[in-house]
Amino acid sequence: MSLLVVGSVAFDSVKTPFGEAKDVLGGSASYFSVAASYFTDVRLVAVIGKDFPEEEISVFRDRNIDIDGLVSAEGETFRWEGSYGYDLNEAHTIDTRLNVFADFKPDLPRNYRESEYVFLANIDPDLQREVLSQVKNPKFVACDTMNFWIENKRDSLKETIKLVDLLVINEGEARELGEDPNLVKAARKILLWGPKRIIIKRGEYGAIMFSGMHIFVAPAYPIESVFDPTGAGDSFAGGLMGYLARADSLSEADIRRGMVCGSTMASFNVEDFSLNRIKKLNRVDIMDRYTEFKNLTHFEDLSEEEFAEMGVLT
Amino acid sequence: MSLLVVGSVAFDSVKTPFGEAKDVLGGSASYFSVAASYFTDVRLVAVIGKDFPEEEISVFRDRNIDIDGLVSAEGETFRWEGSYGYDLNEAHTIDTRLNVFADFKPDLPRNYRESEYVFLANIDPDLQREVLSQVKNPKFVACDTMNFWIENKRDSLKETIKLVDLLVINEGEARELGEDPNLVKAARKILLWGPKRIIIKRGEYGAIMFSGMHIFVAPAYPIESVFDPTGAGDSFAGGLMGYLARADSLSEADIRRGMVCGSTMASFNVEDFSLNRIKKLNRVDIMDRYTEFKNLTHFEDLSEEEFAEMGVLT
Repeated sequence: MSLLVVGSVAFDSVKTPFGEAKDVLGGSASYFSVAASYFTDVRLVAVIGKDFPEEEISVFRDRNIDIDGLVSAEGETFRWEGSYGYDLNEAHTIDTRLNVFADFKPDLPRNYRESEYVFLANIDPDLQREVLSQVKNPKFVACDTMNFWIENKRDSLKETIKLVDLLVINEGEARELGEDPNLVKAARKILLWGPKRIIIKRGEYGAIMFSGMHIFVAPAYPIESVFDPTGAGDSFAGGLMGYLARADSLSEADIRRGMVCGSTMASFNVEDFSLNRIKKLNRVDIMDRYTEFKNLTHFEDLSEEEFAEMGVLT
Repeated sequence: MSLLVVGSVAFDSVKTPFGEAKDVLGGSASYFSVAASYFTDVRLVAVIGKDFPEEEISVFRDRNIDIDGLVSAEGETFRWEGSYGYDLNEAHTIDTRLNVFADFKPDLPRNYRESEYVFLANIDPDLQREVLSQVKNPKFVACDTMNFWIENKRDSLKETIKLVDLLVINEGEARELGEDPNLVKAARKILLWGPKRIIIKRGEYGAIMFSGMHIFVAPAYPIESVFDPTGAGDSFAGGLMGYLARADSLSEADIRRGMVCGSTMASFNVEDFSLNRIKKLNRVDIMDRYTEFKNLTHFEDLSEEEFAEMGVLT
């Protein structure tokens, strides 16, 4: 099934304790679309400036991503500058220049309007709904957001959340949005607004999914050399939504598999700066890491008989 | 198999955002022994003061814990006062009075010296080795420690770690002990000193085990009403060591099951102050929660055929 993503394509300048990268390809829609491209056909909606070089566009072309929705506007491409300390869970923004992104009003190409799976990456919630209204009859819609919108456009954000099937959000943002320090309570509260599921991203601790019925915990892959966490959340969402669109299933089992595919893509993402690692994966890389997640989490049942035999003492 | 624990029996005064408790039963050996008592026979080595009331001792008696090694000394029982903010992963110590614990020189009862499984809870590493030297031929030894010993008795602590099969430690302590902000690297470094395994406790994110061959991640149970995290790490260790002693197995499969038993006990521990919840569990409570951990983490494989069928696009 086709998967549409709207978000940012940007140039990032990033410093981590392990090195730095200047003016490299970034942005939520870039990470998402490349990660998802291993699973399904992706349609990209974003805006770039006149400074965006042809060779960067080839990253999307090489992954067979549909870029009819990638428009070029007068001005400069969105730029973000940030750094990470040893706690790689937290980015420190040094500078954000929206540039052409400030006036972005997406007008979807005709064929994009038939997309079945939609991901509204972290942009203004008004814009998220504007894009969504152009899609005729989506099967499954997910969105991300950030503290800026929670703090400055809470009502509009709630409107968007009402319309989606799945909210994908960071841990701190979930507590802030749900106005509860307890993550379970915050998640339950947000679920009451409308979405069927909420997936909370916890950086090096993985991700946790809440629905009315189920909770599922997926760990992050323990990585010895984390170079740059930028884009890990979007790569996670890309792997997840890419898998779901490909499987064309929203069963609990497939949501769980999708989350592991997401964790797989996120784990590759952090191994290098920008999209350097995730743009050149192959099927065996992805398959092997998925299997490693199984090894990482598998434990055997203890049946009622075993408990009795073991004689749990009460 | 018999399980010996040496550690503290204390009175705690704790304040959390959800209430407070004054001069309630606490201490690493208390939490550990009660948690382990659901799985196997436990021998307790600790010291109490003359102020320790008979009814508190009945907590151990009711759980059939062997208290021949619980000595009463002139003076007051060890007291700890602390508080937690909304981030329940971090305790703020207000006051620590070692009292009788300051001069504690354990002399093991004769039958204790034949114990097969030994847990050296967080005490002076010199004392940990002193106790261990009194056990004739233990099958499996684990120890815990804390930042105070890492910072003030690093060499002695390394000596203890060399002698144990398993180190159980908090996340921040692991980074500090291994002198590396990356947890995987810190763990690998500590493993070179001698222990076969290291289990790192991550509070509400669960626990992660490293051995030369394997990594295993156990989540924490997502709890809507965490009242008091005090003792969660010791309850975890108690459930883990209790299960291993009962199964009398150190296989990878049983270490993993043991960690889930540990997470089960820790999840009950935080539901109330002191040992109020874990002192009155029954087999069904423990069995049901163990099964919930399975539901929480289970996802289906994706076989090579499914990956190919799905057509992961490369």
